[in-house]
Amino acid sequence: MNLPSLSDIQSAHSRIKPFIHQTPVLTSQQLNKLFGCEMFFKCENFQKVGAFKFRGATNAILSLNEDQKQRGVVTHSSGNHAAALSLAARMNGVKAFIVMPENAPEVKKNAVRGYGAEITFCKPTLQAREETAQKIIDRTDATLVHSYDNFNVICGQGTASLELLNEMPDLEIVAAPIGGGGLMSGTSISIKSINDKIKVIGAEPLNASDARESFRTGRIIPSINPATIADGLLTSLSELTFTIIRNNVDDIFTAREETIIECMLLVWERMKIVIEPSSATVLAIVKENPEFFKGKKTGLIISGGNVDFRKLPF
Amino acid sequence: MNLPSLSDIQSAHSRIKPFIHQTPVLTSQQLNKLFGCEMFFKCENFQKVGAFKFRGATNAILSLNEDQKQRGVVTHSSGNHAAALSLAARMNGVKAFIVMPENAPEVKKNAVRGYGAEITFCKPTLQAREETAQKIIDRTDATLVHSYDNFNVICGQGTASLELLNEMPDLEIVAAPIGGGGLMSGTSISIKSINDKIKVIGAEPLNASDARESFRTGRIIPSINPATIADGLLTSLSELTFTIIRNNVDDIFTAREETIIECMLLVWERMKIVIEPSSATVLAIVKENPEFFKGKKTGLIISGGNVDFRKLPF
Repeated sequence: MNLPSLSDIQSAHSRIKPFIHQTPVLTSQQLNKLFGCEMFFKCENFQKVGAFKFRGATNAILSLNEDQKQRGVVTHSSGNHAAALSLAARMNGVKAFIVMPENAPEVKKNAVRGYGAEITFCKPTLQAREETAQKIIDRTDATLVHSYDNFNVICGQGTASLELLNEMPDLEIVAAPIGGGGLMSGTSISIKSINDKIKVIGAEPLNASDARESFRTGRIIPSINPATIADGLLTSLSELTFTIIRNNVDDIFTAREETIIECMLLVWERMKIVIEPSSATVLAIVKENPEFFKGKKTGLIISGGNVDFRKLPF
Repeated sequence: MNLPSLSDIQSAHSRIKPFIHQTPVLTSQQLNKLFGCEMFFKCENFQKVGAFKFRGATNAILSLNEDQKQRGVVTHSSGNHAAALSLAARMNGVKAFIVMPENAPEVKKNAVRGYGAEITFCKPTLQAREETAQKIIDRTDATLVHSYDNFNVICGQGTASLELLNEMPDLEIVAAPIGGGGLMSGTSISIKSINDKIKVIGAEPLNASDARESFRTGRIIPSINPATIADGLLTSLSELTFTIIRNNVDDIFTAREETIIECMLLVWERMKIVIEPSSATVLAIVKENPEFFKGKKTGLIISGGNVDFRKLPF
């Protein structure tokens, strides 16, 4: 298995730098006081398309050869990766074919449409998504860019924590959300390769705790019927992301739905920034594990800010 | 009438600088494209207490003499000024007495309580507010710090546009919301004194257009039963703010409620920042007056980000 290294992530950073936003690292004295530790929020909600996914998607597009660029890219995604790949493709003159489940949030469908991708809707099952994508590949010979089970995507996602550590080199803990594990894989490689004393912690909803179960049992437990508001964290690990996470992550903590919602509201209210529930999961694990984080300089990867404001939990 | 000058505002800036946040100036390519002009958002939603009001309140507190500091300050305010004065007072060891209408938003009552001020509730009429404040003054000899009808408060509010113009000196228009006119007064003095070619425009809800009527008729028209979601813009001009605004403001534009709500949502969705309806009014006048703003470098003072998330209009 070909695993990304720090230098792969550094190359990705040089490659994508002209296309991405270098997002700010924000702090809140109020939240530090409330939570009893010193937190540094790496705000990928301010990234293009409102999520870190633009980093990985851009790296994937820029890593295509000329022939592949001609034929285009395809992916199946219910959310941010779809928008990210669509925009990254358009910015580089590459055609994007996006398979989305019919029940994807309107705001995400509109985003993908707005970036000029060709959408094919399918039933909201993994099987339907994969089959529909395969049909498109058979027809177009487009390159599949999976949202996390992809070397170049993982390298791109790892660039967020490169920037974070560059700005705040004395962090003691870095926490990031885990869905399929793309962000967590890239994050953990970056952080551990630069300073293996920094604890790397995954954040997962208790109601979708397949990554923690996989981590603890040593084999991939699929995510079955996850029931969480954190709609970016529904997917299962792949062999690739599982391997990287086992090698590099110190632990995976879970958070209850009410804590996730409470933390999302807290960030909106106190920091005046919009973060999505998946991102709030990272703050929620800090709240539910005060002893672990107490007094520690903690980097939190805020994964995105794409929210359907007409369906808020408060 | 003693009117503030640019040098008064510059002195206020030196005075309050160690206490305030120098807030960022944000841009959005998406919104620029949608609105057809180049916008620079001066983000006072990131100011302490979530609003520009902290600037004026801090300047008022720091301008007290020692004897006045001993006796404390009093104000009547339904919202951001109450929180701002409470925090500014506490940071300087001054006692704050706050008169709030019973129906003020919970989030704002809690903020004031959290800053340790003594709250006295009253009926939600201007008369009840003024009478209750007067009783406190009679009892304590505290200094009244009105939320806008106050020389030092106006000087403090003017510091936001000083910072904006320092960062973006080639603006062609600067727009700010008008409620009682404190922010507009400070803004217009700063901008016009530095470069009188820059157009200074006030933004007001159509359903609370007393400032525009006052501006056009040449006499103060009180705000009677304003019906707007922009809860920071319900108050009437004072002689002081009216005089400054007549001297310095080029025009006052109004916006409809649905445009204000639409623009608030747009900023949350696209910029991932939380702004309050009063702030969205500034973007709403740009939307409703596209010819005026077309292609212009426009500074927008985003006044605050204090929103009751349980009572959203969408």
